[in-house]
Order: sequence, then structure tokens, then C-alpha cells
Amino acid sequence: MITLYHSPRSRSTSVLSLLRLMGKETEVKVQTIQVKRRGGLGDSDPRNPHPEGKVPVLEVDGRMIRERAAIMLWLTDHFDSALGRGISSPVRGDYLSWLFYYGNVMEPLMYLSFLEVTDNPMVNEWCRDNAAMYAALEVALSGHDFLVDDQISAADILVASPFTWIPDMVPDSEPIRNWLSRCEAAQDMAWLAEVENAGLRELGLADEQESA
Amino acid sequence: MITLYHSPRSRSTSVLSLLRLMGKETEVKVQTIQVKRRGGLGDSDPRNPHPEGKVPVLEVDGRMIRERAAIMLWLTDHFDSALGRGISSPVRGDYLSWLFYYGNVMEPLMYLSFLEVTDNPMVNEWCRDNAAMYAALEVALSGHDFLVDDQISAADILVASPFTWIPDMVPDSEPIRNWLSRCEAAQDMAWLAEVENAGLRELGLADEQESA
Repeated sequence: MITLYHSPRSRSTSVLSLLRLMGKETEVKVQTIQVKRRGGLGDSDPRNPHPEGKVPVLEVDGRMIRERAAIMLWLTDHFDSALGRGISSPVRGDYLSWLFYYGNVMEPLMYLSFLEVTDNPMVNEWCRDNAAMYAALEVALSGHDFLVDDQISAADILVASPFTWIPDMVPDSEPIRNWLSRCEAAQDMAWLAEVENAGLRELGLADEQESA
Repeated sequence: MITLYHSPRSRSTSVLSLLRLMGKETEVKVQTIQVKRRGGLGDSDPRNPHPEGKVPVLEVDGRMIRERAAIMLWLTDHFDSALGRGISSPVRGDYLSWLFYYGNVMEPLMYLSFLEVTDNPMVNEWCRDNAAMYAALEVALSGHDFLVDDQISAADILVASPFTWIPDMVPDSEPIRNWLSRCEAAQDMAWLAEVENAGLRELGLADEQESA
């Protein structure tokens, strides 16, 4: 028994999108829950097993898997999905590198940009800077249509996700913009919007905007 | 052909320690290189294939794997090592969660503590705070001797590594201190010190202190 604890329009949305692309959206139970959101919307939810009240959490036979990339990796490995790259794949290392790069480099750069502390030697030692991050994406995309190879993987869904939420982050780079368009086109955005809106209504949250 | 690009007393040291515990320190070629270090010691190295001059990088059949946890995961999976937890293991999810938790939560908290920006709602949204991080470690260690179960895994080597470098980070917590002692006792610190000192001499860097 596998359960995804999910809150609409949150970090867990990309896991829901991955499940749909994997064709596993009915094999994994999706439990919609509240989370505290920026601006005071939403609240913590006693049904959330995450010790820090975050989403997503994946429950597998009573054990909890936390961290979004860990969940995506576990799911693609478990279902031996084409959205992952298996252990014997020659691009397994690229797949893992991007899954870890997201949280190790991209999320820090995003938050540090908001906090306006990117121009700092210690930050640069840790996660370099946005220019290096965009260059890493461009180098990968100069070789193939998606980050790992010519087919979309869970790594694309993960790495592209913040650009969807924070359009200001999208750089003036044609290869990156084209890749983001390909990522969006490859996902079932109509299904996702419908499920997300149903989730918001279930939680009694205003369906404040139509999703893209 | 697998090559680890390593610089002594850096983030790649824990990968070297993992290789030794896996018994694979002779099957993987260790290429010792320079990296720029805090305080001006060391320099970039033209032999380093990492686009941003970091270590470690793992080269596998000409492809590069970056991000320390990605390398550790790839190695333990590839060699089907007892230092990892395989795809069919019931604790695979715990293993992955800790590997990702390290870079998603612990490294940010460390750097943000140095930068003195931990008392911030956006930081707390992102990676909570040190108290929550120590609590997560203590909850895991209340159930078993190491993070995943009663045997050391690559996740312990990774998660314990910053405490070795920054003793000020070690909290006043008996379960965490005891776990750190177990992690140190389980690794071959004498071998590691010898290899690290040889690497420093090879690079012409002062062997400025005896390793523990």
C-alpha cells in the first residue's frame, strides 16, 4: 500500500504530475491534506505524518519517505518506470546527479536570491551562483532535448518545477525556455489542473485562479 | 573504468572513506587533484572535470557523476554493497530520504548558521531550523544504532561528515554524540589519515596537522 500525502499547488504537485506520466495515479493513493502556506493561507493538518508538517511524504507499508527527490527516485525505481533511469542504465549517474543537484544547488540559489545573500564567498563556495546554474542547464540541453537524454525524466519534472512557480527565475536563454516548454507539453497539465482544483475545493480553500 | 576525483581533506574525503568500507578502494581509481580552499590554500586544477571546480566527481566510462550523495548512492547500488540499501530493501526509502535530507536541509542549515540568517520565516519554510534537524536525527537514533537501521550505511558517513569538520555543530545530545562515535569507530580512520597525508604531500600542500 503506497500513499502520497499531497497538498494542492505545493511542492507535492510535481510528484502528482509524475504519477500521472508514469500511469500510476490510481495505483498510489493520493491523500489530500492541508499545509501552512506563505501569506497565512492553510494550516497544519493532523493527518500529515511528516514530522515538520511538510509535503510531500510517501507512505510505503507504514514507513515514511521524505524529501521530494527521494520520493521521485523511489517511485521511478519501484515501478521500473520510463520516467526514471534504472540502475543498469548508462545514464543512471546523470539522472541521480540532477535529482541531487536540484536540492543541493538550485533550491539554495532560489532562496538565497530571495534573501539577497547570493553575493557572498561562502555562498559561492557552497552553490556557486545563478550564472553557473543556468550554464549547467544549457550544457546539458545542448546535447539532448531533456536533462538526461532525449526523453523526459522525473529529473526534468523536478528541476523545471520552480520555474513554473516563479516565472521571474526563467532566464533569458532560448535553450532553457524551449526545454521548459517541452517539459510543460510533456505533462498532462489539464488533468493536473482538474485534480488540483478538486483538491482545493475538498480543503475548502478558494479556487483563486485557473491553473495554466 | 571508474575514477574518483578527490582532494584531501575536502568533501570528497567521505567518499574515499566509503570506498574503503566497501572494500573497493583499489577497484576505483582515485585521482588526487587540487581544489581552491577557504583561506586561499590550493588552486583550481586543470585535471578536474567538474565544470565548477568542485570535488568529488566520479567518472564512469567517460560520463561524469556530480553531487556527493549521488556518487555515494551510485557506488553502493553499482557494487550492490552492504553500505547501501538495495532497491528491494524495505528500508530503501529511509536510505534515500537521508541521502537527500543531507543536502536539502543539513547543508543549508550549516551555511545559513554561518551567514547568520537562520531566524527568518523563508528559511524556516525551506529547511526549518537546527532544533528540528537535531530532533530528526534523535528520532531515527531512538530506533536503531545508525540512521537507517542497526548497521552503518553511506547515509551515516554523509550525514556525520560535517560534524567531524565543524565540532561546534555537535549538539549537546547524548544519542547524537554516541552515534557520531559509532560512525567514527566504524570507519578506517588510520587508513584514511595515511592516504590523506600522502595526498597532501603529492599536491605539495603542508601536512599541517595529524588527522584524528
